[in-house]
Amino acid sequence: MNSLGAMQDFPLRIMRLMDHAEREHGTREIVAARADGTTIRTNWKNLAHDARKMGQALERLGIQPIDRVATLGMNHDRHLASWFGVVGMGGVLHTMNPRLFDDQLAYIATHAEDRVLLYDAAFETLVERMKPRWPTIEHYIRFDDQFDGWLAAEDGDYSWHEGDERDPCGLCYTSGTTGNPKGVLYEHRSTVLHAMSIIVPDLFDFSARSVMLPVVPMFHANSWCIPYAAAITGLKLVICGDNHPEHLCQLMNDEGVTHTAGVPTVWLGLIQHVEQTGASLGKLEMVIIGGSAAPEATIRWFRKRGVHVNHLWGMTEMSPVGTVGAPPQNWEQMSDDEQVEYMTRAGRSMFGVELRTIDDHDNVLPRDGVSAGRLQTRGPGVLRRYFKQDHDACDEEQWLDTGDVAAIHPDGSIQITDRAKDVIKSGGEWISSIELENAAVGCPGVAEAAAIGIPHPKWDERPLLLVIRASGSNVSEQTIRDHIAAHVSRWWLPDAIEFVEELPHTATGKLSKKDLRDQYRDYRFADAVAMIGRD
Amino acid sequence: MNSLGAMQDFPLRIMRLMDHAEREHGTREIVAARADGTTIRTNWKNLAHDARKMGQALERLGIQPIDRVATLGMNHDRHLASWFGVVGMGGVLHTMNPRLFDDQLAYIATHAEDRVLLYDAAFETLVERMKPRWPTIEHYIRFDDQFDGWLAAEDGDYSWHEGDERDPCGLCYTSGTTGNPKGVLYEHRSTVLHAMSIIVPDLFDFSARSVMLPVVPMFHANSWCIPYAAAITGLKLVICGDNHPEHLCQLMNDEGVTHTAGVPTVWLGLIQHVEQTGASLGKLEMVIIGGSAAPEATIRWFRKRGVHVNHLWGMTEMSPVGTVGAPPQNWEQMSDDEQVEYMTRAGRSMFGVELRTIDDHDNVLPRDGVSAGRLQTRGPGVLRRYFKQDHDACDEEQWLDTGDVAAIHPDGSIQITDRAKDVIKSGGEWISSIELENAAVGCPGVAEAAAIGIPHPKWDERPLLLVIRASGSNVSEQTIRDHIAAHVSRWWLPDAIEFVEELPHTATGKLSKKDLRDQYRDYRFADAVAMIGRD
Repeated sequence: MNSLGAMQDFPLRIMRLMDHAEREHGTREIVAARADGTTIRTNWKNLAHDARKMGQALERLGIQPIDRVATLGMNHDRHLASWFGVVGMGGVLHTMNPRLFDDQLAYIATHAEDRVLLYDAAFETLVERMKPRWPTIEHYIRFDDQFDGWLAAEDGDYSWHEGDERDPCGLCYTSGTTGNPKGVLYEHRSTVLHAMSIIVPDLFDFSARSVMLPVVPMFHANSWCIPYAAAITGLKLVICGDNHPEHLCQLMNDEGVTHTAGVPTVWLGLIQHVEQTGASLGKLEMVIIGGSAAPEATIRWFRKRGVHVNHLWGMTEMSPVGTVGAPPQNWEQMSDDEQVEYMTRAGRSMFGVELRTIDDHDNVLPRDGVSAGRLQTRGPGVLRRYFKQDHDACDEEQWLDTGDVAAIHPDGSIQITDRAKDVIKSGGEWISSIELENAAVGCPGVAEAAAIGIPHPKWDERPLLLVIRASGSNVSEQTIRDHIAAHVSRWWLPDAIEFVEELPHTATGKLSKKDLRDQYRDYRFADAVAMIGRD
Repeated sequence: MNSLGAMQDFPLRIMRLMDHAEREHGTREIVAARADGTTIRTNWKNLAHDARKMGQALERLGIQPIDRVATLGMNHDRHLASWFGVVGMGGVLHTMNPRLFDDQLAYIATHAEDRVLLYDAAFETLVERMKPRWPTIEHYIRFDDQFDGWLAAEDGDYSWHEGDERDPCGLCYTSGTTGNPKGVLYEHRSTVLHAMSIIVPDLFDFSARSVMLPVVPMFHANSWCIPYAAAITGLKLVICGDNHPEHLCQLMNDEGVTHTAGVPTVWLGLIQHVEQTGASLGKLEMVIIGGSAAPEATIRWFRKRGVHVNHLWGMTEMSPVGTVGAPPQNWEQMSDDEQVEYMTRAGRSMFGVELRTIDDHDNVLPRDGVSAGRLQTRGPGVLRRYFKQDHDACDEEQWLDTGDVAAIHPDGSIQITDRAKDVIKSGGEWISSIELENAAVGCPGVAEAAAIGIPHPKWDERPLLLVIRASGSNVSEQTIRDHIAAHVSRWWLPDAIEFVEELPHTATGKLSKKDLRDQYRDYRFADAVAMIGRD
């Protein structure tokens, strides 16, 4: 307290969110569609009670504050209760991605020193296989009757663990492109501030009347902070263990879903389903699309149905939301095309997220919407130091390199042009692999496309485009090339287009350029094609 | 930093809000209708530049961080720049209410040890009169050419003062009913958290597309935190030095105002003006009404015109927002009357505001919507200790008595039934003076009403109702009594009704029950009336 007077002490601890939820909207429904086909209806009051019992149960196992408790599960009510149960007793919630490879799973659980693993019955085989490689895990609890029985032994007469607001509360590993995965250790303060920030009208626009169906896995990037944001607002949370379009549509209609969120591929599936069946989107108002860029066609499809697409950019290291494409101040004055163009950008930064772009010589670039450079960020929800590392990930001024290449427009909206490591460096300049891919998938008959740089004796690198044809299509290389030519500079045109049956993806569903580069390490352009080069 | 990893350091300092505003929406317009009839169009970028120059100018005067700099002004652009200028150099902004009495103004400026006073030319006489009674004030700067010239001498090459997030930043005195005014010392952290909290959909619902006209004086209760909330969101701020209905309506139409905020009397004036002239409300979407209870008629009037009334309750000691009456989760299922009834309540608490009611024996009362008791609060934006006092204003668990009597409904919404000191204690039970007044003003022909307790030999106190008739009306005592009888228990009926020409108000425009009680100290009921008593 300063010497003159004072406002009150209120450590920004996550369980304050749960206290608020329990007290102010305890009866607000949480609906969970479990993997076994049953639907569970619970609420914040019950969830808080389960979290308290879990705090007791973990302490009975000898788990201490700051100890890591891991989960390996899809989205369901038991998993949600565990989020608050682990954090409530002061533990660190380590959400593991079940789609990781065995070597990665072995590494991260051991690196995290996880002491307990809560897991879905569906992953029993995986868990049994991994047990010998998880020496630190002392207790395995299955998210089924075993979990219920474990909690049933407790009475819930428990007070949340208190501590400093900078204490850690969560751990998420990012699958780096080189070396081992790195852990982002979230803190109570950073998480509460982030949750407070993302519910505002220009981000997720969550209110007590919202009904939110996150199609974001609870193991993906802090689940976009949605469970915590939900606790503040008293919205109705609808969670689902799968992302089958039919199931999502049914939940939207049955539960009156107004908001949803997920990666672009989820929506491609949903759109296809709706187009084929004529299914309704119910009361859907907003779809938040992140993880990778939302295609213009997706934006236009939802828009035509009165649903606003809120384009999100962020990263695990950012808690994870960085920018959101809510309508800007001059929205009403924009033409239809201008609005759509704006929506294809990655949005503008929220309070607490500072962004800048720098060139190869670390000069800060102007916000002119054209100059593209390495995107850097800093703020209260941004990583300073990875788990157990001995050096900061950011520089002395706290600027963290995002690994993305972007241009910032004068209105603050950003346009991600590429991942820094995926940029194709040709003749001393950059070709955006993403822009090539976007141009290619806009060509009828192209289902998916990937552009990578192939070594070239004269230009250093030149683009190779890999294309999966849409089923039934036999679109030609020339047609695709002509289509792309209408969207990019001539010297960006790929030196070759190869048709493939499939493209490699990462555990989080993104195109794996790293695998592609490995696969095409020895690829060389035919001489004739190669010499087209740059004008 | 904890030993395992870390998120970034980001002290919650107010100037981070200004940095965000300048960087992300620097060109967003701020329109100020000055008292001299001119309209100034500026923006966040210019405002930040002026604030920097002011930081330099204050330092040139020898002002140090934590020193108090006072303002005595209405709402205008120079005043707004001063808010950020004082805070930007680490000073404490002391906003004085020019409507206070001389003795109060003498006391608070001296108690605050104000070193500089910035004041409107309109208050020149007041300032000249007060100078001998303001021994600590070294510098007087008038908000006109003098202010502009003072800033013009600086170049704006200035960095905000940095410091701890718990440093003080603002000072507002509350005119207590007993003793001297007490100062609430806001901190950077409490203010930033408050600004982040109030922009969400269920509070003020501020977005980049909002156009906000606060009719809340900048000297009133932290100006409801609106200038800081505006800095986060990039809304267009429209400020006006007066609250003439015609002027407000004109600004609403000219500037496309979507949101406005003020005390109930402002809206009574506006409604009268619109009814008489047929003036349009333009694009108005929301009117935030606080300071005292919004009458049902006001709520219905705006509602009929598609404008949502957001009923706010708070106090200077709460930064100042406590509850807001945004539509609850079951809004769509409510009938028209239920919605209006909900809107007459004072709303429900936001994250960071905890509320409870207690009885005379300090027992916590149930949230049943019926049990009325003393309303207490705690949270990060709530006062712990008044300026320069040697003891906390709240108890060991940080509960602060609000001075209000309220009932909390099961859904968390609160109903303020009275000020604790205005409650009429009759036969060991409480009569709400506010409910009597509300019932009375609902009677055609009644312009304003006030109920106070008068000592009574048998019942301890009995209510006296003072009524101002609407111009041209000669409504009778019996008509009023009959009207009230339909709304309250029979034993609540006033023992006497007296017609008066005017009622005393406080400096902030509220009915002054204290003055009324003084005025009617020797009043006694006629015997016959007195013996009606309680059934």
